[in-house]
Formats: sequence, C-alpha cells, structure tokens
Amino acid sequence: MTTRARPPQSPLRVACIQMAPEIGNKEANLEKSLGLIGQAASAGASLVVLPELCNTGYVFDSRDEVFGLGEDIPDGESCRAWGDAARRLGVTLVAGIVEREGPSHYNSAVLTGPEGYIGTYRKNHLWGEEKLFFEPGNVGVPVWPLPFGRVAVAICYDQWFPEVYRLAALQGADIVCTPTNWVPMPGQPDGQLAMANILAMAGAHSNGLFIAAADRVGTERDQPFLGQSLIVNPTGWIAAGPASNNEEQIIYADVDLADARRARSLNAFNDLVRDRRGDLYGDLSQVKSCRPISGS
Amino acid sequence: MTTRARPPQSPLRVACIQMAPEIGNKEANLEKSLGLIGQAASAGASLVVLPELCNTGYVFDSRDEVFGLGEDIPDGESCRAWGDAARRLGVTLVAGIVEREGPSHYNSAVLTGPEGYIGTYRKNHLWGEEKLFFEPGNVGVPVWPLPFGRVAVAICYDQWFPEVYRLAALQGADIVCTPTNWVPMPGQPDGQLAMANILAMAGAHSNGLFIAAADRVGTERDQPFLGQSLIVNPTGWIAAGPASNNEEQIIYADVDLADARRARSLNAFNDLVRDRRGDLYGDLSQVKSCRPISGS
Repeated sequence: MTTRARPPQSPLRVACIQMAPEIGNKEANLEKSLGLIGQAASAGASLVVLPELCNTGYVFDSRDEVFGLGEDIPDGESCRAWGDAARRLGVTLVAGIVEREGPSHYNSAVLTGPEGYIGTYRKNHLWGEEKLFFEPGNVGVPVWPLPFGRVAVAICYDQWFPEVYRLAALQGADIVCTPTNWVPMPGQPDGQLAMANILAMAGAHSNGLFIAAADRVGTERDQPFLGQSLIVNPTGWIAAGPASNNEEQIIYADVDLADARRARSLNAFNDLVRDRRGDLYGDLSQVKSCRPISGS
Repeated sequence: MTTRARPPQSPLRVACIQMAPEIGNKEANLEKSLGLIGQAASAGASLVVLPELCNTGYVFDSRDEVFGLGEDIPDGESCRAWGDAARRLGVTLVAGIVEREGPSHYNSAVLTGPEGYIGTYRKNHLWGEEKLFFEPGNVGVPVWPLPFGRVAVAICYDQWFPEVYRLAALQGADIVCTPTNWVPMPGQPDGQLAMANILAMAGAHSNGLFIAAADRVGTERDQPFLGQSLIVNPTGWIAAGPASNNEEQIIYADVDLADARRARSLNAFNDLVRDRRGDLYGDLSQVKSCRPISGS
C-alpha cells in the first residue's frame, strides 16, 4: 500500500467536538453533529473526533431502547450521513455509535473519510450497565494506515487499561482518537486535572502517541459527564484543552504526526518500544490478531 | 504463611525521604540516610522509602567508579547499617543501592525490616548510561507479603512501563515503593505537575495501588534532578507531596493498605483486574516467574 510509505501529513489540524446529545433523539443529535462537523471543517480541520455514542446518548434504560437505536455499519442512517459529510468536506471522522450486527450490539466508533468508509472499532472494556446491553469488542485494537498517518481508536473506559494505548503504539499508531463519555472519579481535589485527562497524558507520554479525546457534556438521567476534552502531544503535554466542563465546544490542535514516530526514541540508549521487557510481560505478538473491520 | 492471612495494618505511616547524595561519597551518604531514617522513625513512620542509588549518587563516570561502589546484598556495609537501623527502630526500609553479584552489577533496592533482610528488587528498565554499567533486572516484579501488607518495588524508568505497576497489582500488591532519580522531561509547562508525578497517579488509579515515590534532589555532574517526591492513593489522587523540587525533605502519609484491595472494585460491574482483556494482551501468567531474592 502506497499510503504506508508516505511520511505523515504535517501540519494536520485535529478537532475534538465536545457536544451534549439528547438521549434517544437520534435525528436531533445527528443534525447537531453534522453542524459541528461543518464548523470544524470550515476551521480547517482534517481529522474530526466526536464523542462516544454521540448520536444516541448514553444512559440507556433497557435493551429495547438500545436495540431500537442501533444501526448497521456502514449502511445505517448516521453512517451514511457522516459518510456524505466526510466526502463533501474532505475530512476524516471518528464518531461513537450503537452498532448493530445481527442480534449483537457494540459500543463502536465508525471511521469514515474523503474516500468513504474506513473501518470500525468496538469498545473492548465495557463500563457499568453497558455490560447489560453491549457485547465486548471482538476486533482488538486495529490501526488504520490512512493517507495522513496511522490511526487507532480507544473508547472511554478502554483508557483505564494502559495495554490499549500500548497495543496501538506497538502497531505503529501515530494518533489514538478517543471518543468518550467520561464520568466523575471520586475524590478529585479542586484545581486538579481530571483523572481521565491524567490517564491520557500518561498514555501519550509512555507510548509516544498523540491522543485526541472528544468527550460529551451535560447530565443525562442523573448521570453527569465531565467534558474537558483534550488533545495530547506525544510528549504527554497538552496541545489543546482541556475544554469546558459543561459547554459544547470544539478544540483544535495543529500537529505533526511524525512527532509520534520521533517521540519513542528518548536518547541514544532509550526507546519506549525497544526498552519493553517482553520476557517479563509478553511481546504482545498476539496483536496480529487485531482485525480491522474495514471497507474495500 | 500466616502473614498472608492477616488484613493489612491500618493506619500505616509511610515516609518518603527526599535527599541529595554526593557522588561517590558513600560514607557521608549512608550517614545522612541513617539520620533521616531516624527522623522518620521518630515521626512514627513504619515504612520508609529512600531514593534510587541513595548511598552512591547517580551520574557515574566509568565502570570502575560503579564497581568500586557496589556491594553485596545483604552483607555489604550499607545493607548491614540499614539492617541494624531497621531492627533497632522497628521500621521497614526500601533503599536504592549499587548491588554487586560476582562480576555483575544491578541498580537495585534492598528491603530490610524489623526481623532482618527481606529481599532485593533489581531495576528492570535501565535509563541512559546505566546501560553501560548495570545488568537489567532478572528477578521480575516480586511482591513480598509483609506483616503490614504486600509490597512491590519499581525504580524510576520502570514507571514509564505501565506493565510494571500492572504486574505488581496482578500479584496482589498493596503498595509499590518507588526509589527514583527523576530527571526533567522536555516541554513541561509552568504550573503543571511533573510527568513523573502524572505517571505515578495514572499507575495508582488504573491499578488500585498505593505508590510511594522517593526522589533525590540536587544537580550532579550537570544533571539536575526533580525532587517532587509523592505518595499516591489507590484512587490516583495525591496523599502527600509533591515535595520541593530542590530541598531535602521527608513526606508522610497515613494510609490504610486495605484501600488498595477495595479500590480495584469500581462498581457492581467493573473491577480493574477482572476487566482486563487477557485475550487481547495476555493474562500475564508468566508473572509466576517473578523470583524474589529473599532472606530466610
């Protein structure tokens, strides 16, 4: 594939869309997302990340509610609408969605770009009552080589498992897009970064990865969400954000994805991938089994 | 072993000694460490963590210099002195040391307590020119069941590999003592926590572990060190510190090690250990091979 041989694009403008979906109102949420995508594209963004389950809301009451909101990828109505927008605007989108595959439902993210459907990520680590509605992800942590660089995806609670960012880095990812619906963690002191932000910074730093996390805001069926979307450099320091904790907002960063490839080499003696002790904790050769669900 | 069956002690006063060793002056460094250990014991500490290579300094010029400073564990002069202090004061010490074993040298931490020598940890991930002087650790990430709780050790750059804290947690550790000689990471913005602090917080939060990191201060042969020692709760929030970035200082936290065992269960559906996806990144069953180098 010729895309693998190209250096990553620089600069690449990355946008994270922080929005407040309305539970169950797919039509309104989809319309809102399309407006914000248009706004990000007008501002020059090429890669646009939307929150987890951004077209449905999150706090489901029943399997019936979830199953009524699920759709096929890439032929469901939201995917078609996002696919059209991506083609028309020349952007790559990563958007959280309830995916239906036969009788199974997944908390997924669809990737779609200027050339059409790219692939699907299925959340590997399910949080709370998600375990009542969704099947755990069964496609590993795929990395897609796109014209501008290599992209992986993690969703919310996946981030609590540092193995996820590690799997992405070991497969050569430059950026991990992280649609999320972060909830508060107990005991946060005033003035401290949210723990979800800290996990993203640690994941970026210890793997040499860009991380672009798009969170939702608002309170849904008594569950508050954090906002504080952010984009992190491969050094681990913040490139954009954290966004507001309660307002819809788009954050942007102009990044050079090649920095991720440079960041793993720390000095003449140290490289974050080479220094791993596979003899102690595995060389993760099983990552070969990560199976992208992709278009043509 | 009866110690495994007891609940961990609560409260347990943990101390991290932040000090500035003088390169090569073992006698003065050892004496200083003993004074600070006495001070921590007088303040009621039961578990006392000292920095990496606290009796030798860090920035070595040559193998000859390192080899001249190495000593056998537990029979070398520093280990004997620390062992005597631990017995006399009724404290458990974790102290960084150049370990000599035949022709090999390790960047190690010795554990010694009221009943005598406990064991040795050998740094698994060597930083920079350490690779010229030391052999990489060959005892895995041991966890010692002590009367007050289960203790593991990580040293400095080990912390850049989230697998280390994970290995400790999967073996049931309550607290990871982290002797360290942190150096600045490029690009830190003003007012931001040090990345080393952020890595400790992320490691504690995503594993449900206490982490007690004792750093050095001072500049040695042009290499500045960070200070900012800290003790982190299993929630990931800071229990004590960060200490000063340039002063010798002892920080204390009164902890309930049982909180680490409680912290892994997040709600009815989620547990940080049970939720791991061993099918994707290994069940780390090889941790059985972690071999404590222990006394009787």
